[in-house]
Amino acid sequence: MMTEAFVNASVTPLESLDMLSPYEVAKLQDKSQGGLYRLLRQCALAVLNCGSEMDSTRMVLERYRKFDIQISQKHRGVQLDLINAPASAFVDGELIQGIREHLFAVVRDLLYVQDEFKDCCDDLAPSTVATNLVFHTLRHANAFRPHVKPNVMVCWGGHSISRPEYEYTKKVGYELGLRRLQICTGCGPGAMKGPMKGAAIAHAKQRKADPRYIGITEPGIIAAESPNPIVNELVIMPDIEKRLEAFVRLGHGIIVFPGGAGTAEEILYMLSILLREENDAIPFPLIFTGPAGSEEYFDTVDRFIAETLGERARSKYEIIIDDPHGVASRAKEALLEVTAHRRKVGESFHYNWQLHIPLDLQQTFEPTHANMASLNLSRNQPDYELASQLRCALSGIVAGNVKEPGIRAIEEFGPFELHGEPALMASLDQLLTAFIEQRRMKIDFEDYQPCFRIAAASKVSSG
Amino acid sequence: MMTEAFVNASVTPLESLDMLSPYEVAKLQDKSQGGLYRLLRQCALAVLNCGSEMDSTRMVLERYRKFDIQISQKHRGVQLDLINAPASAFVDGELIQGIREHLFAVVRDLLYVQDEFKDCCDDLAPSTVATNLVFHTLRHANAFRPHVKPNVMVCWGGHSISRPEYEYTKKVGYELGLRRLQICTGCGPGAMKGPMKGAAIAHAKQRKADPRYIGITEPGIIAAESPNPIVNELVIMPDIEKRLEAFVRLGHGIIVFPGGAGTAEEILYMLSILLREENDAIPFPLIFTGPAGSEEYFDTVDRFIAETLGERARSKYEIIIDDPHGVASRAKEALLEVTAHRRKVGESFHYNWQLHIPLDLQQTFEPTHANMASLNLSRNQPDYELASQLRCALSGIVAGNVKEPGIRAIEEFGPFELHGEPALMASLDQLLTAFIEQRRMKIDFEDYQPCFRIAAASKVSSG
Amino acid sequence: MMTEAFVNASVTPLESLDMLSPYEVAKLQDKSQGGLYRLLRQCALAVLNCGSEMDSTRMVLERYRKFDIQISQKHRGVQLDLINAPASAFVDGELIQGIREHLFAVVRDLLYVQDEFKDCCDDLAPSTVATNLVFHTLRHANAFRPHVKPNVMVCWGGHSISRPEYEYTKKVGYELGLRRLQICTGCGPGAMKGPMKGAAIAHAKQRKADPRYIGITEPGIIAAESPNPIVNELVIMPDIEKRLEAFVRLGHGIIVFPGGAGTAEEILYMLSILLREENDAIPFPLIFTGPAGSEEYFDTVDRFIAETLGERARSKYEIIIDDPHGVASRAKEALLEVTAHRRKVGESFHYNWQLHIPLDLQQTFEPTHANMASLNLSRNQPDYELASQLRCALSGIVAGNVKEPGIRAIEEFGPFELHGEPALMASLDQLLTAFIEQRRMKIDFEDYQPCFRIAAASKVSSG
Amino acid sequence: MMTEAFVNASVTPLESLDMLSPYEVAKLQDKSQGGLYRLLRQCALAVLNCGSEMDSTRMVLERYRKFDIQISQKHRGVQLDLINAPASAFVDGELIQGIREHLFAVVRDLLYVQDEFKDCCDDLAPSTVATNLVFHTLRHANAFRPHVKPNVMVCWGGHSISRPEYEYTKKVGYELGLRRLQICTGCGPGAMKGPMKGAAIAHAKQRKADPRYIGITEPGIIAAESPNPIVNELVIMPDIEKRLEAFVRLGHGIIVFPGGAGTAEEILYMLSILLREENDAIPFPLIFTGPAGSEEYFDTVDRFIAETLGERARSKYEIIIDDPHGVASRAKEALLEVTAHRRKVGESFHYNWQLHIPLDLQQTFEPTHANMASLNLSRNQPDYELASQLRCALSGIVAGNVKEPGIRAIEEFGPFELHGEPALMASLDQLLTAFIEQRRMKIDFEDYQPCFRIAAASKVSSG
Repeated sequence: MMTEAFVNASVTPLESLDMLSPYEVAKLQDKSQGGLYRLLRQCALAVLNCGSEMDSTRMVLERYRKFDIQISQKHRGVQLDLINAPASAFVDGELIQGIREHLFAVVRDLLYVQDEFKDCCDDLAPSTVATNLVFHTLRHANAFRPHVKPNVMVCWGGHSISRPEYEYTKKVGYELGLRRLQICTGCGPGAMKGPMKGAAIAHAKQRKADPRYIGITEPGIIAAESPNPIVNELVIMPDIEKRLEAFVRLGHGIIVFPGGAGTAEEILYMLSILLREENDAIPFPLIFTGPAGSEEYFDTVDRFIAETLGERARSKYEIIIDDPHGVASRAKEALLEVTAHRRKVGESFHYNWQLHIPLDLQQTFEPTHANMASLNLSRNQPDYELASQLRCALSGIVAGNVKEPGIRAIEEFGPFELHGEPALMASLDQLLTAFIEQRRMKIDFEDYQPCFRIAAASKVSSG
Repeated sequence: MMTEAFVNASVTPLESLDMLSPYEVAKLQDKSQGGLYRLLRQCALAVLNCGSEMDSTRMVLERYRKFDIQISQKHRGVQLDLINAPASAFVDGELIQGIREHLFAVVRDLLYVQDEFKDCCDDLAPSTVATNLVFHTLRHANAFRPHVKPNVMVCWGGHSISRPEYEYTKKVGYELGLRRLQICTGCGPGAMKGPMKGAAIAHAKQRKADPRYIGITEPGIIAAESPNPIVNELVIMPDIEKRLEAFVRLGHGIIVFPGGAGTAEEILYMLSILLREENDAIPFPLIFTGPAGSEEYFDTVDRFIAETLGERARSKYEIIIDDPHGVASRAKEALLEVTAHRRKVGESFHYNWQLHIPLDLQQTFEPTHANMASLNLSRNQPDYELASQLRCALSGIVAGNVKEPGIRAIEEFGPFELHGEPALMASLDQLLTAFIEQRRMKIDFEDYQPCFRIAAASKVSSG
Repeated sequence: MMTEAFVNASVTPLESLDMLSPYEVAKLQDKSQGGLYRLLRQCALAVLNCGSEMDSTRMVLERYRKFDIQISQKHRGVQLDLINAPASAFVDGELIQGIREHLFAVVRDLLYVQDEFKDCCDDLAPSTVATNLVFHTLRHANAFRPHVKPNVMVCWGGHSISRPEYEYTKKVGYELGLRRLQICTGCGPGAMKGPMKGAAIAHAKQRKADPRYIGITEPGIIAAESPNPIVNELVIMPDIEKRLEAFVRLGHGIIVFPGGAGTAEEILYMLSILLREENDAIPFPLIFTGPAGSEEYFDTVDRFIAETLGERARSKYEIIIDDPHGVASRAKEALLEVTAHRRKVGESFHYNWQLHIPLDLQQTFEPTHANMASLNLSRNQPDYELASQLRCALSGIVAGNVKEPGIRAIEEFGPFELHGEPALMASLDQLLTAFIEQRRMKIDFEDYQPCFRIAAASKVSSG
Repeated sequence: MMTEAFVNASVTPLESLDMLSPYEVAKLQDKSQGGLYRLLRQCALAVLNCGSEMDSTRMVLERYRKFDIQISQKHRGVQLDLINAPASAFVDGELIQGIREHLFAVVRDLLYVQDEFKDCCDDLAPSTVATNLVFHTLRHANAFRPHVKPNVMVCWGGHSISRPEYEYTKKVGYELGLRRLQICTGCGPGAMKGPMKGAAIAHAKQRKADPRYIGITEPGIIAAESPNPIVNELVIMPDIEKRLEAFVRLGHGIIVFPGGAGTAEEILYMLSILLREENDAIPFPLIFTGPAGSEEYFDTVDRFIAETLGERARSKYEIIIDDPHGVASRAKEALLEVTAHRRKVGESFHYNWQLHIPLDLQQTFEPTHANMASLNLSRNQPDYELASQLRCALSGIVAGNVKEPGIRAIEEFGPFELHGEPALMASLDQLLTAFIEQRRMKIDFEDYQPCFRIAAASKVSSG
């Protein structure tokens, strides 16, 4: 209806922005290395671009290359000037309120992580430091509701899914909302947006007093997965690993909808946690679901897990096909177990301190050609470690598909090479081929170019 | 997903119900003539039956003939016992909160109209008494926001419309909601529900603090048009005429979506008001709209109005096809005129006292065969009076289609006979035939039996 | 500091006033017999005069005889014009918000009692009708908190008490407030204001979310006992009997501070209820208390009760001297009994339906010379009936002291004559003489003229 | 009424405490040098001891030497165990809610200053760093209301004042509250408490929605000046200088009631700021006021200022005696100027960035014997510098009177020696002697021992 265009606008007093110090304002405007301007511009653009369907960071940045954000001080109040901003963020020239709030969340989190938190608890172990940083960032973003019983369901899945799949995520969200459960996703369209829309209608019917639509993102992915304005709690974590840890410690259970390689990566991340012995007694609802017609995706993934990680891994999740009511009932039931467990062991309701997340899952996996090539993709290691290695492999592949540096690396050095045990390699090959056949690897699947190559198994054994 | 069934449930303490006096409780339980039990049961059933698609009061009553509602006092708190209630009103055995509130609204309005208000302002003219009663009922239901600028758009249209039409009403609602406008409808599915769903999503994006989804109904229609639980302000007016007056005085403008004879009736009601000279200077936004593919309905109506009431009547509304954004922009603009006008003439923002509604529009038109036969359907009268007569004709036809007593009357005495000027009669015949062809007269259009018959024009002239 | 003076002011939009109908506005302006202007002016003046220490209605009316209140409609919003209003109600020309709200409460209650409620439940017994009217008026004034445990302590006592007594009432209020109890009084200065001030400080310390300072008054007494602006829930009952019934059914217990004849009257009212056999099992906290130095008052009253009504009456109350902490602890404890009892018998927490109040206590006792003379002041009747008769005697005396018609009657016909059993007469004489000696009969005790005369006992026996 | 005693109590879930990380909890329990236990215990005790009249930190610490606070984790919720706590903080065994909130404020501020903020903005000048730290601490404590017009009046004055003076502070607070102004004080009894009590009553009458009673304190003074539970925003600044800067930048004007040397010190602090040329154009309301009978204090101070700093200094304040209404009117008027000025120059409403506070006022003045002896107390320097030196002299004297280390220093090394210009010395001597005569130097003025001695002027000239 509206023709896409660029607009200039001054966003006057966001109340919270007014409480910045001149020093903070300067930092946001600082275009030098240590400054925040570059990150601010990138995240602000993503937030403003929420109406769009583009899922390539590069395309977004290219299209809005003339976008600029300036911060000026009028009457000691802070004013944001948006230049060449996406028109879809505005209604009759006025910025949509939800997007306004997202802009503030960006500023809040960028400043906090950069400034206030830089050196918490130096005396602790690195893994604990990471967990504390996630905690502090969430607390600072007001994301905790201390005495509320576990009710946050994280929804994962593709941002680019078919219409029936999208409608299905809405129905699941609706049934979750009818049960007064809260929704947390990674922002963006598709499976990130559907559950929130469905839940919003159900929450309205249930007159839910504090409906939460939590979006957790990070600067590297936000441009490709703009937060939908329904998101009423946006948190920008400093990197992808802290974002994942935030999902796992803040959320009380996870529902996985069909997606692509990214979704499979997230599944492997979860399994590499849940398979740890330290976590064996901790209930953690993990449900894979999709509409009739999408069984294939989970069949593919389930088979891959069976072949690579084995039956113990399969016991960590359940698959429910075409039954929104069933998914929501199961989630509600499982949350009661979570509540009972937390009560029993004295864990807080709002942050899952107890869950063990090993350091390697907390550290950035740089998807360089070297790192990709040196992954240990064999079964002569504990299942949780193999899960972690497989996850890295998939992570690199996602980077090569939609993230700026990944795309550039592929352009320069050609596809990643992966090495490993032949059978595993075959399974992985099968998985990825299936995704391509199911057209789940990219939005523009027509001219999809795989960004990876399975190296001969012999190389591994000889390596 | 859920199999439709009957459930028994005790609805414990609705806070407001607890404040009933024993005398009021007795009245609600009183099954005698003067008692409220019958009305209470009928309205409560309608409210509980909101998930259903049945639009025939008789079918609803038949299906749930074993439904019962009992009021018992436990610890001086009032408890509602629902026996054989529609299962769709419950989630995991618990009544949906929105429906709970609707039950209370039913009790509140039935008691108020019966008890507290029976003889207001006896010394005033009958028309003024009616207007005051509408005012008091709305005020008692907390439906006024005194100093808020005009922002309530009433949406009319069919409860049984095609999927594309329904999706279109959602889009219009979404665009209205993005502009922070409030939605008021007559309850029920279709064009009554779509705009609210769309607006709910937009209001969430705009973080609207006090989103209003006002449903105005009356005991005779409520069973056929159950209020959707999104409705967060339900008002049960005592009869159909007061319900219409409530729309017109509480709402600040009206959007009409495609519908059937009922919708055409409402259009004629509006025209018989807006054509009055007393109302000439009062701006009142009236927009007809539908998606591409539904132009036919408004073409039919527009042509009928042109042929019967003439060009002046056509100047009172505008038709916008397939442009949700345009409809909402136009509505917003028109509301600014309404605001300016009310400021100028000193009219309140919350109730349109000034608008003249003649007594005949306030009085019940009993669609008996005699009344139908004596309507003056000729052009030798002012346009607003002809509009009023045409409206009665259509009103009777709607009654014959979906309302209990109407259906019984037709069964007993055969179709209504209408008399009038030949050209008018031809136009009316054409209108109704077009509705039947467009399958807009009933849900089960397959075996639609017209409940009226145009009598020979000669009878009129000789009458 | 401020020199008392008269000011003119326009009180613009009181939000709730804006929702009056033109018919209601006309009624408030109507100076004829059936109109509300006279009552409105009288109550509005009382509300505005809250800073003053005058306790004579006549003096207030005389001083502000030029006071006028006009209601005009600007832009359909209602504007109150106050002419020659007491300056103490304003701060820098702006009406104190609490007083603004009181003005609205006056309008709300006058209109409700006159208009909306005139004929509730005609088919019930007169006593039940009265109880229902009290209920409806309180409910309409939003005075119920349905599920909150009994916590409303009514404070009675003189409006004209000594400084130490006033300070003591503040201390008791403070201790009640620390225990999160709510305060209800009859409005006015002295023992009506002190507990509220004390509780306000304590509620602030306890961060009480919904602190209630309920003032219940009626048009005949409001001018003499202006509501303090701390009162945040003002209810104007239609007459003195309904006001008393409101205290007893809305409050959960009563604390009586020293006062004069009016206070003694209220004590007798309570006893004539609590002595009824129907009420025997209903716990009702009734505590008399005052500071060291004020024992005399309760000694006098206690002795009078012992001599006239006997020991059973004395068991209905307890006397605690100079112990604010003890009074509050006792009140809190007693309220637990009330709560337990209501739970057991299924009585609501917000309105004491169960308590039997006989019709004669609900009917206006007109303190004419004839009525006063025909009171049955002898012990050959049940104790509760004697209590009721004694209460009437005292009621007449209070009327003769401070109420307009009473004062006029005394001026015209001389003091009231009371007849009765010699011993009773002697006790009553003693009681009243003691009050005069304790200077508790009027503010200007210097030239106090008794408005009653005990007739010779022989007259009674021969009568 | 209540006998002072010690109680043990577990303060269960303070909601905000529950959101502490295990690392933070450990820090609060850490009794080592870097740990927070000692500070926590000291501040918690002060907060719990609010009912007491003791104003000597040492006496408080001595009396409650067995007081202990332990933090335990139950169900990941944090529980505070209070051992041998002052009974006055409890009502029927339950901690007063206001005090509960103060306990949390203590934890919040101790952790923030220690942990999160330790190295803000290292690249800025020291003075700017201090100003930023004050800003961050206040913002973290939620003490800003960004778009609210200047309305915070700081009240300074003695914590140990006469009854009439105390009553007067209440009256001033009442008049400020009637004008909807907010109160900020340094916590503690006397002039810190009176204005809040008065304002609380007035705010209740005005139905003020967000009444603020801000208490700003610091660990060194909190034990001697326990926050009154009416304080609903308690901030614990890290030291006395930041506390003073917080008053000046957060508050919009200052009212000074009679006090002692501490109050005179605060007056000199203000003058050393307001006399700076950089601040010449910035309006800053500074009003000295007291009841009839207390003129002497301000006469003394005013004369001292005239003799030492001269007429320019006298133009920076005004003195209003015995006129609460006048003080409040003047304050309101002056705040309009402040508002106009901030609008004009673009200063924020919530933090006075613009006001220049020189570094020496921001740095701790250690009241050692050496530092006291080396103060430059002569007129051959700018007036603002002399004001600053005089302020240090008084600061040391206050430390010697009521602060632990000061008292110990005096005990060990004898009274401080001060040097300076003879005339100045004479004025200072006169000032302090007058304070002693007016019994304003300590609560137990009977056995007051001056903790300072004016050295011979010759020593200075020869030094």
